[in-house]
Amino acid sequence: MRIALLGGTGDIGEGLALRWAHDTDHEVLIGSRDPEKARDSASEYLETIEARGAEANIKGFDNEMAADRADIVVLAVPPYHVGDTVDSVADKLDSDTVLVSPAVGMKGDEDGLHYHPPGTGSVTALVAQKAPDEVPVVGAFHNLAAAKLANLDADLDVDTLLVSDVDDAKTTVHQVAEEIDGLRALDAGPIANAAEVESVTPLVINIARYNDDMHDVGVQFN
Amino acid sequence: MRIALLGGTGDIGEGLALRWAHDTDHEVLIGSRDPEKARDSASEYLETIEARGAEANIKGFDNEMAADRADIVVLAVPPYHVGDTVDSVADKLDSDTVLVSPAVGMKGDEDGLHYHPPGTGSVTALVAQKAPDEVPVVGAFHNLAAAKLANLDADLDVDTLLVSDVDDAKTTVHQVAEEIDGLRALDAGPIANAAEVESVTPLVINIARYNDDMHDVGVQFN
Repeated sequence: MRIALLGGTGDIGEGLALRWAHDTDHEVLIGSRDPEKARDSASEYLETIEARGAEANIKGFDNEMAADRADIVVLAVPPYHVGDTVDSVADKLDSDTVLVSPAVGMKGDEDGLHYHPPGTGSVTALVAQKAPDEVPVVGAFHNLAAAKLANLDADLDVDTLLVSDVDDAKTTVHQVAEEIDGLRALDAGPIANAAEVESVTPLVINIARYNDDMHDVGVQFN
Repeated sequence: MRIALLGGTGDIGEGLALRWAHDTDHEVLIGSRDPEKARDSASEYLETIEARGAEANIKGFDNEMAADRADIVVLAVPPYHVGDTVDSVADKLDSDTVLVSPAVGMKGDEDGLHYHPPGTGSVTALVAQKAPDEVPVVGAFHNLAAAKLANLDADLDVDTLLVSDVDDAKTTVHQVAEEIDGLRALDAGPIANAAEVESVTPLVINIARYNDDMHDVGVQFN
């Protein structure tokens, strides 16, 4: 499968790119508004993986071209760029492309980070609203610590939660999620349940801040 | 220590009562608006523990008397009774009593449960607002599956998250939480961070609903 990471030069994009490129045979397409930057990141990620004696298939493109070529398009961009990014690639998407939303709206104060969703109730719901009707949307990969994800020496041993209104698309993302070593995907229901999933992200960051021995905190359900 | 569970005849109250009575030497006071009901539940819990060949110290009282005698007062009542319950015991509380809030406001629809906090932003913040100024408030025990908690044969193996603006009180609750076998307490910061903690409760219930092999879902952070 071809997996595009729009904003794949950023931190969560880097982690997902490295994990999929290293742990699976999927083709990873790094997308950026600046194709030069995308190609640079793709080369860097490839070097990281080849330095471990492994092979990978990673290429860089502008966001539109990456989206056009991909079976799965992950919106690995900050929450305030999600809407614009969907608009910019909308005519490259169709019912065969799964659009994946990992972003979370947060705002911080002296106490910690707080969940701060857009008016749609969640970023995932915003993506579903913005995307062409026929494009299936899945919320996933919200609660992964970026630094741990991008460190191939670190055992993940965490869960990710999936929300979607389209079962086939959810199954597809479930599959590629679990192909990453140490990542388990759980079903959290339809997109209407996305807010409770997204709000775990500020929570794990707060836990890392307030517990001395915890860093890059992840979550597991049992 | 004396730990009162107001609403201790209900499901989360039962679980905490059984665990503290079984796993520790603390005196457990079951509170209810109806003292007769409280005494019945206390006898029941005691029988459950004695049937396992263990000893325990559990007694039933009306909520006011339970609160008056306790060092720690847990508001194990539904979210819509939390405000009234605090009012009803307010003059029995002082700076030496730690008031603990485990309740979570939720509303359900066909998709699942959704976090539905009061206007104060969280039930814990509501308790802090309602309680006399000198009474330290701690949010804790939100995300525990009641049926698993009340089943002494079940290994808990879960985390609970603490929020408070008073460090000493948080330390006290941390201690009695971790005296329950298989329960780890983590610090999630001040009460301003309570919403992200409370909203894990509808999430774990949604996960139990949408994953066939999961029941009484708990959470762990790593």
